[in-house]
Formats: sequence, C-alpha cells, structure tokens
Amino acid sequence: MEPQVLEFLLATRSLMTVGRFSVYKCHFREDVAQHSYYTALYAMIIADIERQRGTRIDVERLLRMALLHDAEEARTGDIHHPCKHQDEPFAEKLNDRALEWFVELMGSLPKDIANEYIGLRRASRDLSAPEAKIVKAADKIEALLWAYEEYLLGNEHVRRAKIVEDILSKLEKIELPTVKALVFEIRNRIGTIET
Amino acid sequence: MEPQVLEFLLATRSLMTVGRFSVYKCHFREDVAQHSYYTALYAMIIADIERQRGTRIDVERLLRMALLHDAEEARTGDIHHPCKHQDEPFAEKLNDRALEWFVELMGSLPKDIANEYIGLRRASRDLSAPEAKIVKAADKIEALLWAYEEYLLGNEHVRRAKIVEDILSKLEKIELPTVKALVFEIRNRIGTIET
Amino acid sequence: MEPQVLEFLLATRSLMTVGRFSVYKCHFREDVAQHSYYTALYAMIIADIERQRGTRIDVERLLRMALLHDAEEARTGDIHHPCKHQDEPFAEKLNDRALEWFVELMGSLPKDIANEYIGLRRASRDLSAPEAKIVKAADKIEALLWAYEEYLLGNEHVRRAKIVEDILSKLEKIELPTVKALVFEIRNRIGTIET
Amino acid sequence: MEPQVLEFLLATRSLMTVGRFSVYKCHFREDVAQHSYYTALYAMIIADIERQRGTRIDVERLLRMALLHDAEEARTGDIHHPCKHQDEPFAEKLNDRALEWFVELMGSLPKDIANEYIGLRRASRDLSAPEAKIVKAADKIEALLWAYEEYLLGNEHVRRAKIVEDILSKLEKIELPTVKALVFEIRNRIGTIET
Amino acid sequence: MEPQVLEFLLATRSLMTVGRFSVYKCHFREDVAQHSYYTALYAMIIADIERQRGTRIDVERLLRMALLHDAEEARTGDIHHPCKHQDEPFAEKLNDRALEWFVELMGSLPKDIANEYIGLRRASRDLSAPEAKIVKAADKIEALLWAYEEYLLGNEHVRRAKIVEDILSKLEKIELPTVKALVFEIRNRIGTIET
Amino acid sequence: MEPQVLEFLLATRSLMTVGRFSVYKCHFREDVAQHSYYTALYAMIIADIERQRGTRIDVERLLRMALLHDAEEARTGDIHHPCKHQDEPFAEKLNDRALEWFVELMGSLPKDIANEYIGLRRASRDLSAPEAKIVKAADKIEALLWAYEEYLLGNEHVRRAKIVEDILSKLEKIELPTVKALVFEIRNRIGTIET
Repeated sequence: MEPQVLEFLLATRSLMTVGRFSVYKCHFREDVAQHSYYTALYAMIIADIERQRGTRIDVERLLRMALLHDAEEARTGDIHHPCKHQDEPFAEKLNDRALEWFVELMGSLPKDIANEYIGLRRASRDLSAPEAKIVKAADKIEALLWAYEEYLLGNEHVRRAKIVEDILSKLEKIELPTVKALVFEIRNRIGTIET
Repeated sequence: MEPQVLEFLLATRSLMTVGRFSVYKCHFREDVAQHSYYTALYAMIIADIERQRGTRIDVERLLRMALLHDAEEARTGDIHHPCKHQDEPFAEKLNDRALEWFVELMGSLPKDIANEYIGLRRASRDLSAPEAKIVKAADKIEALLWAYEEYLLGNEHVRRAKIVEDILSKLEKIELPTVKALVFEIRNRIGTIET
Repeated sequence: MEPQVLEFLLATRSLMTVGRFSVYKCHFREDVAQHSYYTALYAMIIADIERQRGTRIDVERLLRMALLHDAEEARTGDIHHPCKHQDEPFAEKLNDRALEWFVELMGSLPKDIANEYIGLRRASRDLSAPEAKIVKAADKIEALLWAYEEYLLGNEHVRRAKIVEDILSKLEKIELPTVKALVFEIRNRIGTIET
Repeated sequence: MEPQVLEFLLATRSLMTVGRFSVYKCHFREDVAQHSYYTALYAMIIADIERQRGTRIDVERLLRMALLHDAEEARTGDIHHPCKHQDEPFAEKLNDRALEWFVELMGSLPKDIANEYIGLRRASRDLSAPEAKIVKAADKIEALLWAYEEYLLGNEHVRRAKIVEDILSKLEKIELPTVKALVFEIRNRIGTIET
Repeated sequence: MEPQVLEFLLATRSLMTVGRFSVYKCHFREDVAQHSYYTALYAMIIADIERQRGTRIDVERLLRMALLHDAEEARTGDIHHPCKHQDEPFAEKLNDRALEWFVELMGSLPKDIANEYIGLRRASRDLSAPEAKIVKAADKIEALLWAYEEYLLGNEHVRRAKIVEDILSKLEKIELPTVKALVFEIRNRIGTIET
Repeated sequence: MEPQVLEFLLATRSLMTVGRFSVYKCHFREDVAQHSYYTALYAMIIADIERQRGTRIDVERLLRMALLHDAEEARTGDIHHPCKHQDEPFAEKLNDRALEWFVELMGSLPKDIANEYIGLRRASRDLSAPEAKIVKAADKIEALLWAYEEYLLGNEHVRRAKIVEDILSKLEKIELPTVKALVFEIRNRIGTIET
C-alpha cells in the first residue's frame, strides 16, 4: 500500500510550483502550497473566535477541508479567476473537471481515505455549512492580504487591477461576524494607504 | 485612437509573467513571451528552409500567426496541457473560450486590424495550411528544446514525466521534411544523455 | 478585538519569506509556510492510515499542532539545524527562547485562544503522545522529500551533505508502522538513483 | 544540414538568460528574448496602423528584422547602453563587433539563409527605410514600457536614473505619426504618476 | 595541505546562499557574501578618509577583519537580529557559539593562519580599537543602505518595521567624524522621501 | 564632502545586480559583488600561504586591489569574456574604456583617495608584481569554483561549454606554488565527477 501513498505525497508537492495570480506582474508570486497553509491557519483562527461567540463548528472537518481545498491544482495548474468565472455554466463545468482531477489524484490513497477526502471536497461547495463558509472566507481573506502586502511593497498594478474590490465584494456575502470585522479592519488599512 | 492602442501594448506584457509547465518543478520556468519569441524565430527558419525545398509559404502571414498564437494567455494564464486536452469536446470548448478572450484582448486595437488578427488566430487552427502547420511545429519544437535544456541542467523530473515522448508523438504527425529532420536530430541528442 | 487578530494574520505571513536549509546551495529553496503546509497534510494522511490500523488519534489536535509547529520562525527566522542541535543544553535553551517568541506572537490573539495554542506548542515537545509523534514524523518526512526532489533535480551537494542520512536516522526512532513503511519506500527510491 | 540548424536553434536560447539594464536595481529583470518578442509584436502593430495611414511597408521584412535585431547578444551578452554609446567612433567599433558575432552565430544556418539574415541585420542600421525606422521605434517603446511598469511597481531608482528621459529623447527623433501619438500618450501617463 | 585549503574555499561559498533579514518581505534579499563585500569596501573608504584626518589605522588588519566578520554564518545561517539580541546574556552566549563555529570553519586552514584569523575575529568584538570600530560602522552603514534602497524600490514594509531607526541608533554611538557625516547625509535623504 | 562619498557608496551597489556569465544557462547566477568578495577572501588566503613560503607580499595593497578589481562594472555591466577577448587590440581598447569608467566612478571620492585607487587599478594589470598575480589567480579560482559548483548542481551545459578548460589554461600560466597546488586539487575533483 505505502508505495502508492508515497506517490500521493510526492504528487501534491507540485502545489509549491503552481503560482497564483499569474497574469499580474507582482513582487511576490504566491504559490498554492503557501496559499493553502494560510487558508488552513486563518480558518482555524476564525473558527475558534466564532466558537467563542457560540457557533457550532466541527474544526477537524474544517481543517481537512482547508488543507484539501485546492489540491487538484497539482494536476491542473492555477486557472485565472476571471477566466474561470466568466459565466455560471462554464464555471460549473470547470468545477466538475477540477473534481475529476481531484478524484484522480486521490487514486493513490487507500480507498476509504480517498472517499472521505472526495466527500469533503464535494461538501466544501455547499456554503450553507459553517465549515465550508469559513474555509471560503479564509481562502478570500488570504488573497486579500496578499494584495494588501503588494500595496505595501509599492505595487500600483494590483491597486489598478481592482482585485481588492473584487475579493471584498465576495467576502461581503459571507455572513459571519468575525469575517465582517476583519474585512472592515482591512478596508481601513487599505484606505489609509490610498489617501 | 492611440490611448487604446497603448492599452493593448500594456495588456500583452502579462505574457511575461505567465509561466509555462507550472505543475513541473523545473530549473528554468519559461514564460509565454519567451516561448512566443522562439516560436516565431523557429517558424521563420523552418519556413525559409522549406521554401528552399520548393514549398510555397506566406512568411508574413506565418510570422503574424506565430506572434499572436498564445496572446490570449495574457488574460487566461497558462492552462496545463493534459488538463486542457482531457477529451476532444472539452478541448474544443476551452479553445472557443480562448478565442473569446483573444477577441476581447483585440478590442483596444483599430477595428480592421483587430479583425485581421482574429482571422489569423482562427486560421491557425486549420493545420492543412503550411503556415499553420509550421507555426504548430515551431510551437512544439520550442517546448521540446525547453525539456532538452532541463535534461542538460540535470532535471530528472522532466525525464520521468515523459513530456518529451508526448511532444515527440505530436511532432511526428507533422509532415514536413525540415521538422522530420530536426526531430530525428533532437531524438539522437536526448538518446545520448539517456544511455 | 479584530485589529489585533489582523495583526496576527499579517505577522505569520513572514513564514513565507523565511527560507529553510539556508547554508545549502539548492535548486528549490523551501520556505516555512510551504513546509508547514506539507507537515499538516502529511500528518493528516499518516494519522488516517494509523487510525485504520486501530491507533486512537485526536486529529483536530494533531492538525492544530502541525499548523503551529514552526510559527515562531516568523519572528526568529530559521536557525540551521546542526547549529541548533550542537549539544543538549544549548538546544534546550534555544527551544525555550523559541517558545518565548511563540508566546509573544500569540499576544495579539484573544487570551483563551492564545493559551490554547501555547499549550499545544508545549505539548508537541512530548513525543509520547501519538499526535506529537505523528507531527514530528510528518515534519521529518517533508524534509526528506525536499532532499529527494533535490536529488531528482540533479543536486549532488545535497547527496554529499548527507542530510538524508541525518533525517533518516531521526525517523527510525519513530515507532509507527506507517512511518516505517514510508521510510522503507523512500530509502528504496533514493537507492535506485544512487546506483 | 539539420544538426547545424539545431545548433542555431539552441544557441539563440541564451537570449533568455541575458538580462537587460543590468546596472539598475529593478523589480522585473527583462531578458533579450522577452524584449525581442515585444519589439516584433509592437513593430507589427505600429506598421499596420501606419499602413492604414498610407505608408508603404514590407511587413515580412520588418518582422524578420525585429526578430533578429539583438540576436548576437546570445554571444556577447548585453552591454550597458551609456557604456556602448560613450562616443561615436567607439559605438561604431562595438557595432561592427556585434555584427561579426552575428555573422558567427549565423554560421550554422544554410548559407543563403544566413546571408539573407546578415543583410537584414546590416539594413536595420539605416534608419531611412520605414522598416528599420519602425523596428527602432518598437525597440525603444518596449524599453519605455519596461520603465513605466517599474514606476507602477514602485521603483524610484528608475525614475531618478532618468532612463525615461533618455529613451523619450531618442523616440522624438523618429518621424512617424503613430510613434508620436504613442509617445505623447505614455508621457501623459507617466506625468500622472509623477504629480 | 592544499586539499584542506580547498575545503575552506568551498565551505565559505555558502555565504552566498544565506539571506539576510529573512523575516522581512523585501524586494532584494541580500546575502552574507554581498554584505561582506560592501562591509570591506566601505570600511576601506571610511578608514582612508579618517586617515586623512589624522587617525592611525592599520588598514591591512581592518580589511582582514571585515572579510572575516560574518564568516561563521556559512555554518550557522543568519540569525534574526532582534532574536539574537533579546538580552545581554543570551547575546553573549550566541556570540560564543558563533565563535566556536568560526573556529571549526578555520580548521581546514594551516594552523598559524587559522590562529591569526581567530585572533582577528575575537579582536573585532572590542570596539575600542579604531579598526574594530570602523568595521562595525561599515557593517551597520551597509545595512542602512540596503534599507534605503528598499525605500527607493517602494517597500513600505521596511519603513514601518523601523529597521532604519534601529540601525541609526546603533550608528550614533560610533564616535568617528566620517561616520557622523555619512549618517547625517543618509538621514537627510530618507527624510526627503518620507515627506 | 560626504554627500559625494555617499554617492560613491551607493553607486557601487549596482555590482550586486550585475550577473556574471550571462550567456550561460546556470543554476546560480553569481553577481559581481559576490565574485569580488571571494576574490578578496581567496587572495588573502593564497597570500598568507605564500608568505609562509617566504614570498614578500604587501597584503594591504593586495586586498585593496582585489576589492576594486571589477568596480567599474557598476557602470558598464559584465561584458562576456570571449567577446571581450576576441583579439589583443580590441581587448586593450575595452580595457582602456573600463579604466575610464573606473576613473569616472571614483570622481565622487576625495581627490587623493581617488588617485590612489586609480593607481591600484592600473597596477593590477601588470602581472609581474606578486600582488597583481595573486589577485588574478584568486579572480580565476573563484570562477573555477563557480563552475565546479554548477557541476555539483547537475549543470551539463557548463561541462560542455568547456569554461573550466579555458579558466584552467589561464591559471596554469600563474607561477605560484599555492595556485599550482589548488589547481591540481580542483582538477582531481572535477575528474572524479566526469568519470
């Protein structure tokens, strides 16, 4: 069994070479492994604060979702966001394909474990569950902080590309007090630089 | 009119930031601008040798095709090849989308010029014309020489990924003596390292 | 409260700039964020396989430990391993300091959450618990696969530096069947290249 | 014959490793292959607009010139501009040497083709022909847009080095309406940042 | 004897891979070899100006000290400054360890030469000697100019991290007219950007 | 006076951005500041060993020469070696130009100091003096070890380019026992890889 497990461990290492935001000239090209680390870390913190506020969250499930949320990009590379989301049916189609690659990638894990992971990946599309919602929020906040750091490094490109506005508009749809508060705070900081 | 033309000149500069072969760990991450330069240069040389052999080629048309052949990746990024070519209908669908982005990108050029370029991009899909055939050959030979250089830099990953076999099998379908001879020669060199 | 939480999210982003193995000339300089991602991912997989074998593991606790295991390096940078582990008392002293920096870093999180994370960081030193043991194993396997990939990229430096032997000897002390099997398999692969 | 042609294809690949503007600290070190791609692309667009205005231009000849205009730098590397242009006789001498290296590089191409390319390289020095004039303009506009992007990325060095002034003064001597209009537009944009 | 000397020449080459200021996101990651070059060059210039003013300086001794002042980092990597200087006893302890690694590194040189170098490394801690004082000043001025160049490249991170204040406060304790004058001048420049 | 001295300190920082061996695809692109550091360090060690053997060497003079030996490349960039040394008269001409740029660069130093440095730069051309001879040897040995490390990193390009043979042939003309012994030892090591 283990030779195949090793195959899986090795295959995911491509996430380190897949750069994000490839059509933007930027100072620091983030990769999918880095992005996934912060998505998991931020999700954990948001969940812990939300739990203090009384929300029931399955943190084990949440962290598993976060660690796996972009895993198939080890096979597909990063597809530029506006290209991926041109229209609803196309986005759906690409998402299905992404899931197929995810399934293929899981093929070298023991069957039960593979099935569990595939189930989690599927479940992460349904944003009514708090776990999926928080992973989505962490995913977007991570992108936002990347853009914020590009600002601090002097990158006028990113400011003009209005990525920040785009991400913020998505974050505003997420109804979680911790996310609302973080987004408010980040808005403040960016506003300070812009004036 | 010129402000818009400038917009076009600037937009294409993203080709410099779009890396190719993003799921492979490699020594030298080639970008789409570099790739397009060599595609055009190699296409010119192959065409000139084929012309000496009597083939009729419209070199102006060929060079225009080569310079524009991946231009829409300034908008879409580079989609990993096995992912793009999973099956025929999906590949067709992605190709249509690519063309739409190409059309959008051309939107800041004067109308007549934009239309001419869109026509060329369309025509480059029909491999019966010698110009399209040579651009395709140059496109693949460039990828092959990237892989060959990775071999020379010591990259065992590339050897195992069998990219070379994949590209070679596509090149073998191109019926042009110059391409046949080049492929034969490159095969020889790679064989020399492998033993 | 949230402005401080944001401070924490931003502070941890330095993990992306802290390179590992800085005294080795290498092809791919891994950073602490990438390393932490794979440590968490690999720990999850090892735990899931061990659980199939009947071991009782608290996976939530394990994943939290893994995500936080090197967090203080956002403040201290990466200290070269042989330098850190020169002798037992010095290693202890450095470890205590690392913990102090960890505590300082957690200072911008809500108190209860900070305390929980500090507790986890402390607990991860005691390798008798299966969670700590698996995080340690994943931490070392990640380093081993980095070295293995350097081999594949042609890096003779890494081979000569005997890092691999060093890591393997540490892994051999970890008594977990999944780890034993993985280490055996990796040994096989590396052996194949060396002959 | 083909082994030698392959030698040529491989030799030109060094253009990807030769960085431009090496004495400036910059965010994005452009290489000669990237520069040559944009020189060819921009030359094509300028030519097409000029043709709409009634100028007669041999676009095939123009594109060949553009693709080859810095090819010898695969042998010589990039010589810093103020150093190259210290005084007229020295610039002439270096230019002659550059041509010798160009001839040497062409040595692995079939004789007729080599001679044609050498003729084009020579002809590109005579700026009275519209083709040479447009290639020169595209060459300079590309450098200008590199500098403009450095501005957008926050590079104060480039602003102070007054490279932009230097390039603009050269562009002003080129009497082509499209070039005049583009330069006017770029001036506007840069002015907007500076105030 | 020479095989061992070669070992030393090779071992010091790791200084090229050890990055400085690793916890800061920066545009240009300086390494210890670059830093040591400028420390030696700047020390020579400061010494020559001070000599014109009548100070007696042993420049041979000064240059030897400068070239060797961080040599042990080839073994230890770069330890982040605030971490190193948390408190006096810890700083002393780390400094002693650094010296041990320095001694170990010198082990492949002929004994007399090794001893001379170790003596110089020890002497460089006593800032009452003009040679040690100037090397220290050059060391800090180099760091200051790195930070100044990051400002020019648009790096707001560095500005906020107040590294510059930190370095300036150390430089102010060095009682040498040339250093005073240089620091005054650099302060002026940075002030100009900040307003 | 000091504002100008600061100008000099800043101007030399371009040596960090000037890459060496720009026409070779390589794993680790060395810059002129790194090269100059090792040239000075290695020159010091060779001199100290030669002194043990009884040769009289002015080490202060030697170290000054080494630190300044490529300083003008902050203005000119790195000119590729075979291009620079095409023929004797051309090499002489380029060398004279290099010296002019060196003089220009020194223009912001106090006059006496500038003159001293210019004198040293001139003197370093005359290889009959032991100081100049050792700087030359260190300069070449540094290049050789760069190539050797490229071998270790798997770079077949460098092996084929026969740079090593070229550098070795130059080193063989330098009549110093320490250099002879080092070259012999390096030859041995490279031989070991090649078989």
